[in-house]
Amino acid sequence: MSGVAKIYSLKSGAKVPDEIVSIATREAVKTARVEAIGGVSKLRLAYFNHEKKLYEEHDYEGFLEVTSLLGNITLKEGKPFLHAHGNFGRRDQTVVGGHIVSATVFPILEVVITPTRNTALRQFDDELGLNVIYKTLRGSAK
Amino acid sequence: MSGVAKIYSLKSGAKVPDEIVSIATREAVKTARVEAIGGVSKLRLAYFNHEKKLYEEHDYEGFLEVTSLLGNITLKEGKPFLHAHGNFGRRDQTVVGGHIVSATVFPILEVVITPTRNTALRQFDDELGLNVIYKTLRGSAK
Amino acid sequence: MSGVAKIYSLKSGAKVPDEIVSIATREAVKTARVEAIGGVSKLRLAYFNHEKKLYEEHDYEGFLEVTSLLGNITLKEGKPFLHAHGNFGRRDQTVVGGHIVSATVFPILEVVITPTRNTALRQFDDELGLNVIYKTLRGSAK
Repeated sequence: MSGVAKIYSLKSGAKVPDEIVSIATREAVKTARVEAIGGVSKLRLAYFNHEKKLYEEHDYEGFLEVTSLLGNITLKEGKPFLHAHGNFGRRDQTVVGGHIVSATVFPILEVVITPTRNTALRQFDDELGLNVIYKTLRGSAK
Repeated sequence: MSGVAKIYSLKSGAKVPDEIVSIATREAVKTARVEAIGGVSKLRLAYFNHEKKLYEEHDYEGFLEVTSLLGNITLKEGKPFLHAHGNFGRRDQTVVGGHIVSATVFPILEVVITPTRNTALRQFDDELGLNVIYKTLRGSAK
Repeated sequence: MSGVAKIYSLKSGAKVPDEIVSIATREAVKTARVEAIGGVSKLRLAYFNHEKKLYEEHDYEGFLEVTSLLGNITLKEGKPFLHAHGNFGRRDQTVVGGHIVSATVFPILEVVITPTRNTALRQFDDELGLNVIYKTLRGSAK
């Protein structure tokens, strides 16, 4: 018995979100859930400041365990777009988490991508200052 | 290629678990895995005290990044019931986590619901003081 | 509508990874995504030290909420192998996380296993000092 989920192993140096978006593009994934565990070295993590309508970003250097990466692929301007949040374990096993701006895989990241049966369209919302899902369609969008 | 997972975007003010249970009821979901990322404002989080058989609850005010919400829909007394745990990123990017009692979406929560091929039935267990899965059935329960 | 995901409820005293590997063996799962929420008592968590090529382990005694367990089943030497990372909520609702070496379920762990449509093969990589996915195959491996 097998479904539609597919596992990928990203190697050292691969960039997030770029590499995951490349896979989605190559495999014509329009909307999907995305998850990963593994490790990263450079990480840029964000917390959204709703008053200022901007992400407050913080950079982490050095190896972090990816204790969970959860997110989704949706279509933004017709192209696959990754929205992902993550939790990251430090050497003392405390955890930092937030919106993932970017990360560099080190030494591996095991990613599972599962296409959904509906398609979600994303666009920038001026009022919120965020990219949000504004519409979902049954089945695959053109 | 598309499976059975479906993505939903909850808007500001939507209540958890209520809104997710409403979706499950409307779509006749009997058992499913549930996940989400996004943000919440009010959050009530719990840690179970096994000696006293009660949840120790803590309230968080203000915006938190939902870095992971993982859980499931099962049938309790014939109706969809959400059991969910979550990790939440604060402004300093440290994370709090536990059993989700309730939360208010702010400004969005992107939820994926994936029906399972078996059905799980839940009921309150007096000995544990918890709602637990006591039986799983092949396929869909009546 | 039902897919290939299946939910299991592990009882108090069940061992991770043993019990999850047993399920995969019994159900002939070759590659799958794995997730869980619930609770554990004894927990051994690790952070990988890339210079020394070894896991730095830390033991936690007493009840912890499993706020997220994410991982996968792959084939190592032809047998199901669990790679899992986790986040765990303490009584003060702070979270610790890392690579799960072992854990004892207390009092329940609700696990979802979703077979993938490709098969991933894992082996020990001497250079990294880690078990890594070295090959993925379309469909089911023999």
